[in-house]
Amino acid sequence: MISHEQQLEELKRRLREIDHLEKANAVLYWDMSTYMPPGGSAARGQVLSTLSQIAHEKFTSAEIGRLLDGLQPYAESLPHDDDDAALIRLTHRNYDKSVKVPTAFVGEVTEHISNVYQAWMTARPVNDWASVRDPLKKTLEYSRQMAGYFAPFDHIADPFIDMSDYGMKTVDIRRVFGELREELVPLVKAITSQQPADDTIIRRYFPEAPQLAFGEAVIRDMGYDFERGRQDKTAHPFETRINSGDVRILTRVDEHYFGDAFFSTVHEAGHAMYEQGINPAYDGTPLAGGTSAGVHESQSRTWENIVGRSREFWQHYYPRLQQMFPEALGDVTMDAFHRAVNKVVPSLIRVDADEVTYNLHVMIRFDLEVALLEGTLEIEELPRAWNERYTNDLGITPPDYQSGVMQDVHWFGGTFGGAFQGYTLGNLLSAQFYEAALKAHPTIPAEMARGQFGTLHDWLKENIYQYGSKYTAPELIQRVTGGGIEVAPLMRYLRNKYGALYQL
Amino acid sequence: MISHEQQLEELKRRLREIDHLEKANAVLYWDMSTYMPPGGSAARGQVLSTLSQIAHEKFTSAEIGRLLDGLQPYAESLPHDDDDAALIRLTHRNYDKSVKVPTAFVGEVTEHISNVYQAWMTARPVNDWASVRDPLKKTLEYSRQMAGYFAPFDHIADPFIDMSDYGMKTVDIRRVFGELREELVPLVKAITSQQPADDTIIRRYFPEAPQLAFGEAVIRDMGYDFERGRQDKTAHPFETRINSGDVRILTRVDEHYFGDAFFSTVHEAGHAMYEQGINPAYDGTPLAGGTSAGVHESQSRTWENIVGRSREFWQHYYPRLQQMFPEALGDVTMDAFHRAVNKVVPSLIRVDADEVTYNLHVMIRFDLEVALLEGTLEIEELPRAWNERYTNDLGITPPDYQSGVMQDVHWFGGTFGGAFQGYTLGNLLSAQFYEAALKAHPTIPAEMARGQFGTLHDWLKENIYQYGSKYTAPELIQRVTGGGIEVAPLMRYLRNKYGALYQL
Repeated sequence: MISHEQQLEELKRRLREIDHLEKANAVLYWDMSTYMPPGGSAARGQVLSTLSQIAHEKFTSAEIGRLLDGLQPYAESLPHDDDDAALIRLTHRNYDKSVKVPTAFVGEVTEHISNVYQAWMTARPVNDWASVRDPLKKTLEYSRQMAGYFAPFDHIADPFIDMSDYGMKTVDIRRVFGELREELVPLVKAITSQQPADDTIIRRYFPEAPQLAFGEAVIRDMGYDFERGRQDKTAHPFETRINSGDVRILTRVDEHYFGDAFFSTVHEAGHAMYEQGINPAYDGTPLAGGTSAGVHESQSRTWENIVGRSREFWQHYYPRLQQMFPEALGDVTMDAFHRAVNKVVPSLIRVDADEVTYNLHVMIRFDLEVALLEGTLEIEELPRAWNERYTNDLGITPPDYQSGVMQDVHWFGGTFGGAFQGYTLGNLLSAQFYEAALKAHPTIPAEMARGQFGTLHDWLKENIYQYGSKYTAPELIQRVTGGGIEVAPLMRYLRNKYGALYQL
Repeated sequence: MISHEQQLEELKRRLREIDHLEKANAVLYWDMSTYMPPGGSAARGQVLSTLSQIAHEKFTSAEIGRLLDGLQPYAESLPHDDDDAALIRLTHRNYDKSVKVPTAFVGEVTEHISNVYQAWMTARPVNDWASVRDPLKKTLEYSRQMAGYFAPFDHIADPFIDMSDYGMKTVDIRRVFGELREELVPLVKAITSQQPADDTIIRRYFPEAPQLAFGEAVIRDMGYDFERGRQDKTAHPFETRINSGDVRILTRVDEHYFGDAFFSTVHEAGHAMYEQGINPAYDGTPLAGGTSAGVHESQSRTWENIVGRSREFWQHYYPRLQQMFPEALGDVTMDAFHRAVNKVVPSLIRVDADEVTYNLHVMIRFDLEVALLEGTLEIEELPRAWNERYTNDLGITPPDYQSGVMQDVHWFGGTFGGAFQGYTLGNLLSAQFYEAALKAHPTIPAEMARGQFGTLHDWLKENIYQYGSKYTAPELIQRVTGGGIEVAPLMRYLRNKYGALYQL
């Protein structure tokens, strides 16, 4: 009979081994997205897949199950917010999910998705829907089969939502999204009935080097630690955690659009500061990561939108920016610039959308993937349904597949279900958390206007970052806001900001 | 009863899995040496160690042993130079070695060496021999214990030499090195009795960017494929194979010494062209790599010294170099430059040594590590023995530990034994292989003088590169030269070249 201490030690040892395999993959993926020469691509997918499979086999081993069962009484004897209790609870939850899906099925789906992804990469630039249609049907079949392993459930999309936003179900998302849409649609109408902002001024020539230098200076001020991270260029920006001492971000630069690199940098730095701020004692365990897709996105959105598109922020940084780009911005006032980076206009591409219309893009995708899983929508009908929703909700119709149903990687690089709701949950939560921060520290906007972010960063670290996945998203939201997820704070923020910008 | 085909398929599947783990580590190591932020270093060693251990466990599994035993009759039924026969033979040899060393011992030694390496990194710059002395004693104990697992042997250094230069024993190295020294010492004396070359001209200011651009242009001409590789900067240049489509090199730049970056680049590109030229069908198997330390080094030395320091090479490239560095080289003739990059002078640091004295540095290290393993030399006496040998063999005495016994990473980042002989074997073989290439294609030097390397590169690919580890080093040397390793070709090359340079 071994002691709880020994069992816990052995569990942590095994989790560390699995973590090392996963973090090796994080480096391999980062390398693939940055510096890998073209000739390396064919073999890289196989290496990633081998390491994933070894990690999955090791995590679903019977020994991990026995250790978790053995540790159950010990976990229950601890206070709910004890670190070990949280670790055992979270690992058990992940384990129960992982063992439900047969390893062979995981391998089959991984290979299928890798093929769909390759097909999409070729097909998207040439608008070739026909060549991805049948593969997507197979993906849908796999998605429904995957959900089946988690039966019984209230709704077939629930298992997927649970994986990324634990604690929420389809019915919850629908309620929140319905409420948000009702408030959002009139606001979009009100804004778009006004003279639109002129964003041609941020589409002038902005050379790459000062763009990168400016973005890096800003996130350094915000609190991103370059001793424990770095920024590189890639095609599709992302953030990746190697460990608490190494959290990297990636951006991309368009020399004819200021908005691309800068807001990507700040967005990814928002994700990264969350990861850099997690208690380093959690390294090597499942606690060392953001607690849900929604909460993670809330941190990127806080810095990108609430801070990075605020009037206070640009009061401080615009003079410096103007100095760095005298040709592009010499004749542009701070007000004109601030309006340009906050232009609201219904558009076709989600990732380029402004913070008001963005959520409408997300809702379209959420509704469509839920309908696909339910069987009330067929893959053949997906492009038509997509275009119909864009016409109804945003008043514009995609002229082709690549700016329509084929624009996002999610369905072509994963299963259907659970892929999109986190973006809008993140927007909602960013406003809720920021209200709480402001309540505790009303001086935050004034500090921002001086280029100081210490109070906000410290508050986020103390209330959110440090905990990693120790608390579930609902627990964390409860702790920070005293309640659950809410629509009102985001709407207050948007009405306040855009009311002023557009004199509504 | 499963067929040979199925057994071979299964063996290859398992070897591929192990290869993926090892190649993941190659990327992790490359990342650690290039772009990893400082905060990532603490955890990186653990990840590397976890993946190595998993690979070692998987390779030494009983199932691999059973497959190899089962395939033995099949391998013996095949022609000796059949690819499958070579694969089974090599894998069996590696397997027999790997299973001799207990996994726990591997882990213990790995951890100890990692500690010694950390200690050396701190101690070397401050000349602190005392703090590495006791750890080195432990390393020597481990080294002797390691050798013990391979008993019986003729000499305790044999197992280590066998690992890096299969087919050779201590007695062979001693014979070859003895013969070489006898010829080399008078040549060094003859050269150093002349007026030394003026190398201050390559110690002027050479800005980094054109240094890198020049080196990359040269290796592209030589045949290094940048579609299947890349060059980055690091502290200690090396070459690393990820797979046949991704073979990277690393260099370092000293803006006040032209010789550092350029010759490192060409040296590592020599290693890399070997790896890029291996039959891609070998990918994922132990055949996909250079066959021995000596043969690998012969390829780097061919391009670095025989080609890159030749008169013909600079006839073509010097005008371009002069154009790129008009301030440093505007007043320097091609002859003066060629003499400068071929300056022969007894020195203290192996990696900075010229191609004539270099081998004397290697022999000192070889003799000392053999004496340590034999027990005829104690760690306490190592610095004294080192200095004595430098005084005797090169006529200069190290003034401190860092330019003496503490200069090379090898003993501080590995066990004693087998670490150095490959450098001199490589020099010998480069001259032997080059003679064979010249015999087949006497036009090679004339082509070189036009900046053309296709004939030489193709000959190396056809006769050496493509085979990877299919042939053992002795087999390959026999195929290419019709005999064994020899001292005469290197001496002919050196006497010919330096005879002309120094009017001997």
